[in-house]
Amino acid sequence: MTAQTTLFEAYKQTKYKHTGHGPRNVNVLKTVMDEIDGERLSDMYGNGRTINPFEEKMAEFLGKEAAVFFPSGTMAQQIALRIWADEKGTKKIGYHPLSHLEIHEENGIRELHGLEPVLLTDRNHVVELEDITKLEENPACILLELPQREIGGQLPSYQTLEQISAYCREQGIKLHLDGARLLEILPFYQKTAAEVSALFDSVYLSFYKGIGGIAGAILAGDKDLISQSKVWKRRHGGDLISLYPYTLSADYYFEQRKDQMALYYEQAKTLASFYNECPDILTVPREPVSNMFHVHVNAKRDVLEPILIDIYEETDLGLTGFLGDTADGTLYFEVNVGDAYANVPQITVEKAFQLLREKLQKMYVKGV
Amino acid sequence: MTAQTTLFEAYKQTKYKHTGHGPRNVNVLKTVMDEIDGERLSDMYGNGRTINPFEEKMAEFLGKEAAVFFPSGTMAQQIALRIWADEKGTKKIGYHPLSHLEIHEENGIRELHGLEPVLLTDRNHVVELEDITKLEENPACILLELPQREIGGQLPSYQTLEQISAYCREQGIKLHLDGARLLEILPFYQKTAAEVSALFDSVYLSFYKGIGGIAGAILAGDKDLISQSKVWKRRHGGDLISLYPYTLSADYYFEQRKDQMALYYEQAKTLASFYNECPDILTVPREPVSNMFHVHVNAKRDVLEPILIDIYEETDLGLTGFLGDTADGTLYFEVNVGDAYANVPQITVEKAFQLLREKLQKMYVKGV
Repeated sequence: MTAQTTLFEAYKQTKYKHTGHGPRNVNVLKTVMDEIDGERLSDMYGNGRTINPFEEKMAEFLGKEAAVFFPSGTMAQQIALRIWADEKGTKKIGYHPLSHLEIHEENGIRELHGLEPVLLTDRNHVVELEDITKLEENPACILLELPQREIGGQLPSYQTLEQISAYCREQGIKLHLDGARLLEILPFYQKTAAEVSALFDSVYLSFYKGIGGIAGAILAGDKDLISQSKVWKRRHGGDLISLYPYTLSADYYFEQRKDQMALYYEQAKTLASFYNECPDILTVPREPVSNMFHVHVNAKRDVLEPILIDIYEETDLGLTGFLGDTADGTLYFEVNVGDAYANVPQITVEKAFQLLREKLQKMYVKGV
Repeated sequence: MTAQTTLFEAYKQTKYKHTGHGPRNVNVLKTVMDEIDGERLSDMYGNGRTINPFEEKMAEFLGKEAAVFFPSGTMAQQIALRIWADEKGTKKIGYHPLSHLEIHEENGIRELHGLEPVLLTDRNHVVELEDITKLEENPACILLELPQREIGGQLPSYQTLEQISAYCREQGIKLHLDGARLLEILPFYQKTAAEVSALFDSVYLSFYKGIGGIAGAILAGDKDLISQSKVWKRRHGGDLISLYPYTLSADYYFEQRKDQMALYYEQAKTLASFYNECPDILTVPREPVSNMFHVHVNAKRDVLEPILIDIYEETDLGLTGFLGDTADGTLYFEVNVGDAYANVPQITVEKAFQLLREKLQKMYVKGV
């Protein structure tokens, strides 16, 4: 390890990763394009054979009347919430304090739509029924993110989902699913996408996370919601003349990976158990409930980074390129299992975790 | 001609068109992808080698400090206007009554941004200096669309542009260029893109019109505007993880077509003169000032459609697939000259216009 080597640089250099589907490079699109007849006509502002049949297929997959393809989930979700707020005549929307809308969208929900988010529960827990029943005023809509990405992809019990859904229906509160990673949780719940979606009035699904497409999202719900969403999509500047680079790749990788989620989930559980065997490491959740989890390491950055870099250089396996800080002073990183893990030789995985255990053990003994 | 044949169907069947760059099919993207190294990494949320160098190149081309790529012009322009309105502390924005924002964006400017458009001039004229000087209250920003697409691509004189620019600067009114078709007007004005842009505080340019890319737009201006625009781009849901299908194709076709605009302009003037030799036809403008013009035909739909369909079937040249109604009871369609025209055999063009002249003459004599 040279003094100049940063964790990110060392990570990039490794041949193997245990996260993701491989590099996000132009080949991801070329692979799709190679399968498509060049004479096939572009969609035109949301219409045409490269977009509408895929929307219909996703509506059916999600068990909803209709669906519309968006360039991004940010756009899809703000729009769904705005429509529900307008319908209910209140600007209040309930969601988790670490919701994508709250921390990754520069406040679009407030600045563009004038909505008033109500933060349910605290940062480290998933939303439970009582977080909703105890609200003094009913919001127009509750958004549930399944799994809750920023806390390692945790999930409420399925019974809780059913109770929340029943309560919201009884109270006239719309229930929206941030299902960016919906497919990834189906093996844990042992449900179909349509079964989970049936608990919700509107559902968003992303195509570049577990599915590994280029970009894009689906919003599904009843016909009236989707019809209004198309008007808002145009207002947002999302009704592009051509979305086919995204729709075609979404469809391609959806077909390729929709049935792989159970495998990723099993592999995530195995990987998490390897991490949990190391001193001063705990995964969140302890046992993953999807293809993802967070690794929390009780170590100092200037100690942990050289350890990881050594492991990357010795094994050619990259574990993470980034270490975040948690509120309680530990370091963390995210693991998302995809196609890449299957390409890592078993002996490489074993070697990397053996080194990680040993090096953390030494650190522990030295008390650094 | 069969009774069932519609104008649009007959148009689609023709081998040649005198408008556009050819079919908007998947080959438009494949052609670009074939030139790109598959190992090249995707942009990531607005950063990376597939987006930033192109933004810098376009900033330089437009003579501005900075530029940011957007998935759509709808998004880019609303955002520029919002930033100028916030800076000036007034919600008023002045533009033409047939501006894209007014008629094609489902009122996003009002519904998303709460701005208050002031419609300058009447529908059939371009914005002149006095349309601005006579305003009782200064708006935050004036948007000029050059050329004014919905009235055939008309332009004010360059002197008028200079006067408007000087007046706006003096009055502290921001001036924004809807330059969706900026390249297309440079041969008429005999100016560079940077020279025209220098009259404006912010400039938008589209990549799928004269340039013929897949989709996407550039917004250019000073560093502060562009920095704020990136925040709003995220709020709008336009800060996609990957925009490279659009940025790479924008760059490719920009290079391919930026120097073709003078040719398209000359061809448009020739084509317009052919139309103007026909009875009951007038082009708007009479002599084009870009690659585009509108054809106004003083005829009834049920008379003109069969005439056009006959010509398409006899010559294999499609003139238009669509006839619109003007306010004064004539029919009209748009002509945009691009690469396709050069592929039409000269004899086919001559034959088509000979037929059009003869058939309209007969109609005229019969008094239908």
